[in-house]
Amino acid sequence: MKSLAVNPRGPKPKPGVREHLIQIGLEIVHAEGYSASGIQSIVEAAEIPKGSFYNHFASKEAFGAELTDAYSDCGLRKLRDFLCDVNVSPIKRLEAYFDDRIEAVRGKKYMRGCLLGNLSAEVADHSTLIRGRLVEHLGEWSRSFEDCIAEAQKQGAIQNRLPARVLGRFVLNSWEGALLRMRVEQSDTPLREFKKVIFGSLLV
Amino acid sequence: MKSLAVNPRGPKPKPGVREHLIQIGLEIVHAEGYSASGIQSIVEAAEIPKGSFYNHFASKEAFGAELTDAYSDCGLRKLRDFLCDVNVSPIKRLEAYFDDRIEAVRGKKYMRGCLLGNLSAEVADHSTLIRGRLVEHLGEWSRSFEDCIAEAQKQGAIQNRLPARVLGRFVLNSWEGALLRMRVEQSDTPLREFKKVIFGSLLV
Repeated sequence: MKSLAVNPRGPKPKPGVREHLIQIGLEIVHAEGYSASGIQSIVEAAEIPKGSFYNHFASKEAFGAELTDAYSDCGLRKLRDFLCDVNVSPIKRLEAYFDDRIEAVRGKKYMRGCLLGNLSAEVADHSTLIRGRLVEHLGEWSRSFEDCIAEAQKQGAIQNRLPARVLGRFVLNSWEGALLRMRVEQSDTPLREFKKVIFGSLLV
Repeated sequence: MKSLAVNPRGPKPKPGVREHLIQIGLEIVHAEGYSASGIQSIVEAAEIPKGSFYNHFASKEAFGAELTDAYSDCGLRKLRDFLCDVNVSPIKRLEAYFDDRIEAVRGKKYMRGCLLGNLSAEVADHSTLIRGRLVEHLGEWSRSFEDCIAEAQKQGAIQNRLPARVLGRFVLNSWEGALLRMRVEQSDTPLREFKKVIFGSLLV
């Protein structure tokens, strides 16, 4: 509680500390899982007093919800960089995105998968707050895929006539499933198989 | 430790207790997650002394590995009941299996998904023992799907010529992904979308 003791005006949240806690929290929760990550270990790794944590976040659950937002927003920016490239056909944009993601795990010591998928498995049942954020964010991801697929259908670039909404949600859910299998096998084979099936049989 | 104190021959594992612990463990770990399930809560729910637990299982990790085995074996028996029905075409057998699984979650208060998928997300990184069991069991599940798909390809019942091994693994991984999304949305929509895509666009 040192930082509070030396501040005569009482505790005031520092924006830098909040961002720092989120970055450290993302690393620890992604590596250890949500239940296994104590606030104590997060504040120790962040080198801030525990009281400071509660100046920024009402609870571990509120912190978990913010981690969900931060992780999703960062990933969505990357996805949209690929999907906004109008010099490339819609399906090639999607393919380039997944190639990039597969390249990103190559040679990693630990293949941790997607934090949204991991929290879906571990936390969705136990936190209405975090579950709500997951619904919202996975919805945004699905809609990005959906828009790209709808554009390809409109151009006649793919023949598959299932609703783009169903295909977009399926592509995201299947990718999350492939990431789970990747974690188990500690190999990128499930991701490469995903690409082969999605772009060889489904979005054709 | 009462049961040990009244047993002059010292602790001896009782097969009924072992089976009972596995059943209780399956319920608790499936509901709460692996990290959040303490051995204390499991022995309390099972109404056995804690010492008894360690007569049967060397550690929580060893117990987790046995839960993985028990869950997978039970599910595989159900899967094989469907896939062995030679009165039905291979693809219709697969479809009937997934219909049965979708029916099984209908009206459930909590949609918990698949324990193998949940452990893949939560534990795979942290236990070589449990990860090994997951590799093995998910491999058995994939091979069951693969055999069925290979039979359909051989009969000319489906035109998809991607390797049955790749399709079998993809079907399992995508199902696990759909179950994750089901947990988040607490709705069977992702499972019904999975069926629509797999049997409407992929295994055709």
